[in-house]
This record gives sequence, structure tokens and C-alpha cells, in this order.
Amino acid sequence: MKYSFRNDYSELCHPEILEALLKASKEQNSGYGLDVHTENAKNLIKEKLETEDCDIHFVTGGTQANLSVISYVLRPYEAVLACSTGHINVHETGAIEATGHKVYTSEGVDGKLTTQDIENALKIHADEHMVKIGMVYISQSTEIGTVYSYSELKALYDYCQQHQLYLFIDGARLSSGLAASDVKLNMFKDLCDVMYIGGTKIGLMSGEGIVIFNDQLKPYFRYHIKSKGALLAKGYSIGIQFERAFQDDLYFKMGQHENALASLLTEELTMLGIKMLSESSTNQIFPIFKREHVEKLKEIYDFELWEDLGEEIVIRFVTSWATTKEACMELIEDIKKIIN
Amino acid sequence: MKYSFRNDYSELCHPEILEALLKASKEQNSGYGLDVHTENAKNLIKEKLETEDCDIHFVTGGTQANLSVISYVLRPYEAVLACSTGHINVHETGAIEATGHKVYTSEGVDGKLTTQDIENALKIHADEHMVKIGMVYISQSTEIGTVYSYSELKALYDYCQQHQLYLFIDGARLSSGLAASDVKLNMFKDLCDVMYIGGTKIGLMSGEGIVIFNDQLKPYFRYHIKSKGALLAKGYSIGIQFERAFQDDLYFKMGQHENALASLLTEELTMLGIKMLSESSTNQIFPIFKREHVEKLKEIYDFELWEDLGEEIVIRFVTSWATTKEACMELIEDIKKIIN
Amino acid sequence: MKYSFRNDYSELCHPEILEALLKASKEQNSGYGLDVHTENAKNLIKEKLETEDCDIHFVTGGTQANLSVISYVLRPYEAVLACSTGHINVHETGAIEATGHKVYTSEGVDGKLTTQDIENALKIHADEHMVKIGMVYISQSTEIGTVYSYSELKALYDYCQQHQLYLFIDGARLSSGLAASDVKLNMFKDLCDVMYIGGTKIGLMSGEGIVIFNDQLKPYFRYHIKSKGALLAKGYSIGIQFERAFQDDLYFKMGQHENALASLLTEELTMLGIKMLSESSTNQIFPIFKREHVEKLKEIYDFELWEDLGEEIVIRFVTSWATTKEACMELIEDIKKIIN
Amino acid sequence: MKYSFRNDYSELCHPEILEALLKASKEQNSGYGLDVHTENAKNLIKEKLETEDCDIHFVTGGTQANLSVISYVLRPYEAVLACSTGHINVHETGAIEATGHKVYTSEGVDGKLTTQDIENALKIHADEHMVKIGMVYISQSTEIGTVYSYSELKALYDYCQQHQLYLFIDGARLSSGLAASDVKLNMFKDLCDVMYIGGTKIGLMSGEGIVIFNDQLKPYFRYHIKSKGALLAKGYSIGIQFERAFQDDLYFKMGQHENALASLLTEELTMLGIKMLSESSTNQIFPIFKREHVEKLKEIYDFELWEDLGEEIVIRFVTSWATTKEACMELIEDIKKIIN
Repeated sequence: MKYSFRNDYSELCHPEILEALLKASKEQNSGYGLDVHTENAKNLIKEKLETEDCDIHFVTGGTQANLSVISYVLRPYEAVLACSTGHINVHETGAIEATGHKVYTSEGVDGKLTTQDIENALKIHADEHMVKIGMVYISQSTEIGTVYSYSELKALYDYCQQHQLYLFIDGARLSSGLAASDVKLNMFKDLCDVMYIGGTKIGLMSGEGIVIFNDQLKPYFRYHIKSKGALLAKGYSIGIQFERAFQDDLYFKMGQHENALASLLTEELTMLGIKMLSESSTNQIFPIFKREHVEKLKEIYDFELWEDLGEEIVIRFVTSWATTKEACMELIEDIKKIIN
Repeated sequence: MKYSFRNDYSELCHPEILEALLKASKEQNSGYGLDVHTENAKNLIKEKLETEDCDIHFVTGGTQANLSVISYVLRPYEAVLACSTGHINVHETGAIEATGHKVYTSEGVDGKLTTQDIENALKIHADEHMVKIGMVYISQSTEIGTVYSYSELKALYDYCQQHQLYLFIDGARLSSGLAASDVKLNMFKDLCDVMYIGGTKIGLMSGEGIVIFNDQLKPYFRYHIKSKGALLAKGYSIGIQFERAFQDDLYFKMGQHENALASLLTEELTMLGIKMLSESSTNQIFPIFKREHVEKLKEIYDFELWEDLGEEIVIRFVTSWATTKEACMELIEDIKKIIN
Repeated sequence: MKYSFRNDYSELCHPEILEALLKASKEQNSGYGLDVHTENAKNLIKEKLETEDCDIHFVTGGTQANLSVISYVLRPYEAVLACSTGHINVHETGAIEATGHKVYTSEGVDGKLTTQDIENALKIHADEHMVKIGMVYISQSTEIGTVYSYSELKALYDYCQQHQLYLFIDGARLSSGLAASDVKLNMFKDLCDVMYIGGTKIGLMSGEGIVIFNDQLKPYFRYHIKSKGALLAKGYSIGIQFERAFQDDLYFKMGQHENALASLLTEELTMLGIKMLSESSTNQIFPIFKREHVEKLKEIYDFELWEDLGEEIVIRFVTSWATTKEACMELIEDIKKIIN
Repeated sequence: MKYSFRNDYSELCHPEILEALLKASKEQNSGYGLDVHTENAKNLIKEKLETEDCDIHFVTGGTQANLSVISYVLRPYEAVLACSTGHINVHETGAIEATGHKVYTSEGVDGKLTTQDIENALKIHADEHMVKIGMVYISQSTEIGTVYSYSELKALYDYCQQHQLYLFIDGARLSSGLAASDVKLNMFKDLCDVMYIGGTKIGLMSGEGIVIFNDQLKPYFRYHIKSKGALLAKGYSIGIQFERAFQDDLYFKMGQHENALASLLTEELTMLGIKMLSESSTNQIFPIFKREHVEKLKEIYDFELWEDLGEEIVIRFVTSWATTKEACMELIEDIKKIIN
């Protein structure tokens, strides 16, 4: 196998982040995230968010972040509305339902919810014989590589606020989303109630930073993550990583890097006449190959089969912070050989 | 602050383990624990367990391990029996109950359950108006520093098997327990249905290895930990650590080291006329000081206040894999100055 | 308001059943369903089921029956497959999810699942990143008035058994379903693992009889319903009702009666040129009226608005055990006046 | 068997209540508690509560009432504090834990919690490593036949309000409690946040009336009980019963009746030299008999064995609304014969 384009979590972590862990390895630090590094990391993130008025909590993974936030925000008879392609609906083994809440889904457009989707959901859920929709869940960037624009997010959040719905943004691939959209980190405080800043998929060994903007959602969240098994004894191990990631704009540069390489791949593939399932501006792209070409490509590269169209197959290439331009160009060369 | 004896998770991780992470940082690895390092780690652990016939799953923390195992094993109307000092009863913020199960407690003796405790619990829970006891939970070493002997564990497991109860051993501090008791790792396969081998509290950055011996408890456990947010995308980050910990007996040596230093402290303190709350042979000791001496000691060392006896206070010293003999001797010297 | 065709639970209970309650009101009976009447009721039902080899438990309502059965049968990481029109998906306020389980839905055909639906669901849920489908839920009669034929049920159950899926039949309107289909009560033992025999919607004051055929699902179910608040202290109050309902074929006659009246309405409406949304052979029918006619009809009758088609509206008429032929004919006469 | 003193739910329901059901049996009523009888019942209860400012919801049983209220009020990381003898701790098969919440228990005095118990519980639960105590649960009358006085309840509620704890009163045996204590129904609005008025154990076929005084706990409770399977389609069947029970002071008279007979038994037994386990002023009494006398008594009467003291056994006699003075005197005569 020459290289894996299967996902963006194949490489342990960025060397600078490993270096930071190394540096801190002789220290004694307080447990449960009450240490200096975690404090620093929070302050650095708040600077980029351009607000002091938020609570930040670090947990280890995306499903954990999602289930912790959603089960904290919702009352027991409430459901979360998500796009049918949403991670919580498809790829979390019923983790949200396991906390007691229905995930109600809407088709959306390009992997994104619209205010129309929310309106429809509210219309259907009219009385106590149906769950109450209490929260809207979206992802930036989305599970299929698209991004919400500022105006789209603004419209959603305005709608949510008018209808007493909380808006939660899953930022598992936020770094890539930031690099691909006009929504910058300092805008989120006005665009949602709670979000998480993904680390695992962008160069941290593990770690996601949950950011709570809405005052009503702040109290006792530490109790809640503890009860979900998400409060790490060595919380500083994540604090150290985020501390480094938010210095020198490393967090942002990694997303820019992977997006640039994904764009490069898209351009080159397009020049080869390969069509794409969707217009992605992030680090996930979805080219469509003939079945026989996919077979050959599988022998030398690792990637995900996305959708079987019969004679053709949609595959997914994901670039990461660690992917090199060389690996991408070699892939293109190999594809050229295969399809010609 | 000269040094913290507050707990055994103040230092990031053993240098050899960090080195192993460093070495693997250029690789691409498969996600979700389906990588080579995790495979190696499992094989190394199985060698020490002296059985191939078990399933091993790595998760990030102790509460996560406990809630995942217990909610997997129990049926919805069943409860787990624990010692009243048990970690799941006291210090997990209702994590087990949050998965839907009562923690029924018994006083126990020296932090340990006896067959008599189980018998009493079964007698009380006689019909469908009370929860059914489905599992017994114990810790090795216990939350108050004691250890079960082989014959004690054998008696418990025999009793459990005769009464259709699963036995689960929480090994958050297993390394210390192994060094302090006559129960070696190759014996556990005959002493319980499921256990976990603690990493976070003995020199790993994070990670606990759940070991399932009972065939009935094996199927679909990966589905379950995914639904609890416990299946790490970068599972190999834990695999690498356990792989190293189980080479050169590093896992065992760390426990021996911390126990030896705790024994040293016990000896020295005893010679100074300090009494201990309990006879501990592990890395947690519970000396009893006069209130005014505790006040002075708090100014130079960090440790936990365990129990307020009025004029005297029980405190807890915990040694770790990283604690040095020098730090211990300095502590003793400082105590001498304070109490004389 | 002349009469309500809104549902089949507007009238308290059949006079014969009330009479039975009256007769037993001077007795002392054992609590929690351990009384003579409950015993008799079970035996009478078993006679009709033509098997001794099943466990029967009485609970008060349909949602309670559904949530008790489903949460008992499924493991925590498992989901139930239902038709998108299924009661558990639409009208139970997330009751199944509140017990921790996803309801995965398929479109189905005429409110009924097919083996193709199950096959599709299994294909999608291929690994541990998605819930495991553990059970198939269907209703007889369905939520939109249709019924499964014997061969349809047989095909479903065969498929389920081949794929280690449990099949659960919601019989909230079973009496009507029995009268409308070729599936008789003595056939169910070979057609599903567990079902419930609805009482509330067919002339009992309240009560549903859960029947467990599959031996694996029998143990400790009483513990489970107690933990769900479904084990009535005065269980005999339901036992008495089922005891009477299963004497003199009362249970069956009530369904025949309501179906006959629904058929009468269908015939008469068809003769008036009114179209029906679906071909229903049970006690729920779905005529399509012009909007203005619905407005007028609403002034004298109570019924449910089912679907707004713009100029036309689908409404639902439900007949019950208590509905009279006179009331139906008067309705027809009134409709004639309105539409002419 | 001459008579059962085993419990107060052996007889179906008071003849007047059955009469009311009979009268209403020809009517059509709206479903889900939105009917006239339920409305009347609520108004009659509010008159006795002397407040309009409360929400009332009827459900079928005590465990259902308890689990619905507690899981509605608590946040996911919160626990309820109960007396160790509390019904939710002992006899509900983990129903509260099944909704995700720990039941933390305190010994109490005479089956009653004190402010000291609450203070102790709060002291222990000091940070996010332990559940947060969110609610206090007590029963009036208690599970062992005692009652809280007005001043006791006032002290508890004052303490709860000062410490942001909700107070919930389980009134499964409220009628008996009202007759035995100085706390009358019009006082409860100032003594708790939520309570339930028990019906099943005092002459209703089934039904408990949950009363919510605290405005914060009112919204969306109907959604919640629906999601717990507790919203009856034929809600009016309970409404009719409570409507009748709260006419002519029937609800109160039934409690007075059963208490009077229990007092009579106590007096007579005391005169025979029989000692009682506790001083009960309600319908449950706990006489202590010699083992051999219990054996003989068991042959002619049904009652519960409460506690085995070795040579002696504590048994429980419960009187109900249906118990007659004749039955009590006959019991006394039979006891005389046995013990002499």
C-alpha cells in the first residue's frame, strides 16, 4: 500500500504537538483538567473566539462530545433534529438514542439543513404524542465535505432562537471548515449555543474542545461529562495538545494544508475527466470511477468506497495535515496509468 | 510545592512509552483499534494472561471502562453489587445509574466484598419487586489500598458461578495490586468473567484494557463501546502504549516501584510513631497526623485529606511510577521537622 | 356533536366487561397479577392461541407494552426496525428512544414492512459504527388500516429467523386485524417471537396482553415490567376484563362488529363517489372530501384530519365496538346532504 | 382463608366509584385525559388543595408516578435523596435508576428523613466526582406506617428551598396519612414542589394524581408521561374515579375508616400483651408474635411477614377502605385463641 487516503486520523499527531507533550512529560500536573496547560489552551481558544464569555471542556472523541452535549441540553422527552447524513444519525451506533433521545432527520440539501427543514420538523411535531424538537445539530464542515456559509448559519441560528431551539455545531472537521468557508472562529459566538472544536481529525492525538456560549447551558457540565465517562484523569494530556495547536495558528494551518491538497486533487482529477459526486471545498472529495479502475486503484491505495452506482463507484479521498503534495501527485500519476 | 503525593496520575507518562509514541508518529495506522500496534499489545497481554481465549478492548478511562462493561453485561432490570467504598458507587457521578442500573452496596471488610456480602444481597433481593443482582464488582487493588488474595478471589468467583452472577474486576490500579498480592496476571482467567487492566494510573498517557474471558460476554462488545463514545478513532494511540508497557515487564515494574516507595514511607512513618488507618501493601497509604501538623505539611506537599477525626486527620499519600526515593526521603525529613 | 368517529377508545368499556368487574368487586384478590382471574384469562387466551407454551403478561397501555417489550428484547447497542408509519416511530413521543434504542425506519408498502425492507436495513447496518438491527416491529392491523396476510407474516418471520432478528407484533388493534385477515389467533405462535393482544382499543377499560412465545425472551420479564412501572398492584382489574373478553368469543365479535360497520361506511361512501386513500378492511377508513365539505361535517361529527391535499382533505373515520349501525347510516345521510 | 390483611389493594374499588364508572359507560369521552370528568376531578382536587395554581396529571400506578416525576425533575447527573426504607429504593426494581438516576439513601428516623439527613448528603456530595443531589423524596404516610407532622414537613421544605433542592412527596397512602397527621390537603401547596395523591391503595381501581405546584416543573409534563408510557388513551377512566372520590369527602373518609380499624387492632392487641414494632397511627401496623403463633395465624389469615427476629416474628397487618370492624374483631378473637 503506497498511501492511505481513507481518513484524516491515520497519523498519530503533528510533530509540534508531540514535542509539546514531550516537553511537559517531566511535570506534575493537577488532574481532571484543572491544570495550567488546560487553562492556557482555553485562553488561547477564547482569544480566537474573541470572547471570554464561554465555557470550554475537553473530551477525547467526537461521539463522546456529541452524546455529552446533546444529552445535557435536551430534556428527556426532546429530540435533536439532524440532517439524514449527520454523523449522529449514521455513524455513532445509536449513541444519542442510548442516552434516551430520538434523532429526527431531514433530508437537507448538500448535507446541510435549511430553515425550511426545521420548519417542516416543527410542523409535524405539534403535540405531546410526538417528541418535542429541542435542538438542531449540524456539522461544519459537513459529513460530505460541504460547508455552511455565514449567511446560512446566521439564518439557521436566527430561526432557532425565534423558536426556542438550541443550535449545536459539530466541528469534528472544523479546521477544514474554517479554511473553506467565510465563517471564521470569532463569528461562532453569534451563530450557535454550543459547538465543539475538533482535534482528533486535525493533528491531535485525541481531543475535542466543547465550547458553550449559551449561559443556560453552562452550569454543572463537568458533572455531566464525568457521568458519561468523559472527564479524563490526565485531562492535561489534551490541554497540552490544544495549547500547542492554538499557538502560531497551527490549528488553522493544518486545515488550510489539507484543503489545499484536496483542491489540488480535485483539479487534477477534473483535468483527467473524472467527475465528482459533489462540489467539496474541504478535505474530503468524492470522485466517481469506473468499477474496474477502482479495483486496480485499491491495490495500491487505501480509500473508502462511498456509493455503488453500478458501472461506476463513488470513492472518497481524504487528505490530512500529514498528507504531502508528493503523495497526491503520485496518486494522480497512478490514476493516469490506470484509466488510460 | 515540593512534590505532589495527591495521586498517581500527575505525570504524563513513562518516558519509554512516550518514546514508543514518538517512534510511531510517522506511520499511517488503521483506525478504531484495527491496527498492528493494538494487535501486538493484545498478543503481549494474552501471553501474560496465559490464554488466547479472551477478547481485549482498549478505552480511554476508568469510568468509561466501568460503565461500558456493566451496561453491556447487565439486563435492564439488573443491578451490580459493589462495596460501599467501590469507585462506581462513590466517585463516578452516577455513571452506572446513568446507564440504567442500580449500584447496590454492601459494607464489606477492608474495602473488600466477601461471599457473605453477596449471600446477604441475594437473600434480600428475592422477587420481582426488587432489582435482580446480576453482577459483582470488585477492585484490585481496592480504593483503600488493600488487595484480595488468591483464595479470596477464588471463593468470590466460585460463589458467583454457583449463583449465576458475573464477576467484574476493576483494575484501575492493577499493576500495584499485582505487585502486592499473590494473584498474578495468569490467574485472572480463572477468577473472573471480565476485568480491566488499568493504564492511566500506572504510566500510560491514557488507556484501560478491558479483558473479556467469558464467551457469553464477547459478541458485539465493539458495537457497545462505540455507542458509549468509547471507541477511539485513533485507537492505535492506546495500542502503542500498551504494546510498550507489556514489553520488558515495564507494566509490572512500575507497580513494583510505586509499592516499594509506599512501603518505604510506611516504614519510616511507623518508626516516627505515626499510625496508619489501614494496612496497605499498595501505593496508597493513609497515615494519621495531628491537625496542626497537617496544616504545616500542606504548605510544602500536595496530598488528599481522607477523613477528619477531630484532633487528628487521616491523609492519603499516593506514590506513582515517577515518584523517586529522594522525594520520599525528603518528605520524611520534612515530617520529622514538623512533628518534633 | 352527534357522534365521534375520532377513535376507538371513546367509550369506557363493553357492558359485559363492566358487569364482570362489578361481579368481582366484593372479592379479595392477590396483587400484581397473581390472582385467579388473571390465571383464568391467561388460560382462555392460551386456548385461542392453541399453545400452552407461552408467557402472558398484562399491562395498561400500548406505549407501555411496546417500550417494555422492545427494551427487554434488545441489547443496548441494538435498534428496532419499523415502518415509517409505525406507532413507535410516530406517536409515542420517543418512548422507545427514551429506553435507549434507535427506531430505524423503512418506507414499507401500504403501512407494511417487506422482507426487502429488512434486507436493505441489514445491508446498511454492516459494522460496529452503526446500530445493530435486533428486532423487527410490525402492527396487525397497521396504523393505516391495512392487514398482513398469513403468507406475508410467514415470509417476514422466516426471514427474521434466518437473520437472528426477533419479530414483534403490535396488536393494539388485533381484534380488528383478526376479523379482516386470514391470520387467526392460533397461527401467531408460529409467526412471531412476541406480540401483544390489544384491549384498550377494543372494549376493555384498559389493558394489553403481552404474549411471549420465544423461550429466550421469557425469563425475568416480570422484573422488567415492574422496573418500567407497568406491573399493576391491582393487576386483577385487567385480568377480570381479559377473562370476560375471551369468553363467548366477545373479543372476536367486537372486532367483527367494528369492521362490518367500517365496511358499510366504505360501501356507502363509494356509492356516493367518495374516494378512499387506501383499501382498508379494518375499522379505520380514510375517505377524501372536498375542503368545504369537511368544514361542514366537522360541525356535526368528530373525526381526525389525516392529510391535507390542498383542495381536498383526507379524514379518518374509526368505528368501535360501541358504534351502531344507526349512527353510521345517519352519518351517511348527513354526508349526502352536505355533498349535494 | 378468612380474610387478607396483606395489603390495601386486595379489593377492586369502592362501590360508589364503580357506580360512577357504570354511569359514564354509555358516554363518548375525549382521549388522553382531555375529557370533562378529568377536568371535574382536577377542579375538585384543586378545591381541596385550596389553590388554582397547580397542574394535575393522572397516571395508573405508584412506580409510574415516581419514575415519571423524578426523571422529569432531575438533570441527567443528578440523584434523588430518599430514606433507606423509601419505596423507590426498595420496592421498585430499580425503576428510578432505569431512568438514569441514582437513589442516594439516608437512614432517617422512623422511616422519615430529617434536615440533618439532607445536610449530611449535601456535605458528602461536594464536587463533580459525585452525583449532585437534586431532589428529596419522602412518603406521607411512610412505608412503615409513620407520618410527618406539619412542622417536620415545613422544616424539610424550608431546608430544600434554601439549598435549591426539589421536594417530592409520594402519597401512595396519602388518604391514610391525611387522617393520621396534622397536615391537611390545603397545606401541601406550601410544603413541597410536587406530590402525588394516591388512588390505587385507597379504593380506586387504579390511578394516582400527580400535583405539580412549582411553576418551573409544569411545562411539557404531558410529553414526558407520554414518553414513559403513562398517558392513558382512556384517561377518563381515571378521571371518573377521582371525580367521584373527591365528592362527599369520600377520599378522606376511606382513609379515616382504615385508620380507625388499624387503631382498633392496635388497642386490642396491646391489651393482649402483644408488642408493636413501631408506633403507627396509619393503616399499617406491625405486631410482634411468637413464631409458633404466626404459623397458626397464617392458616386462617393472609398477611405479610415483615422481619424475622428469631424466636419472634414481626408481621404486618394492613386495613383497607373495605375492611370491616367484624373482620377485625374476628381476627382478635382468633388471635386470643391462638396465644392462650
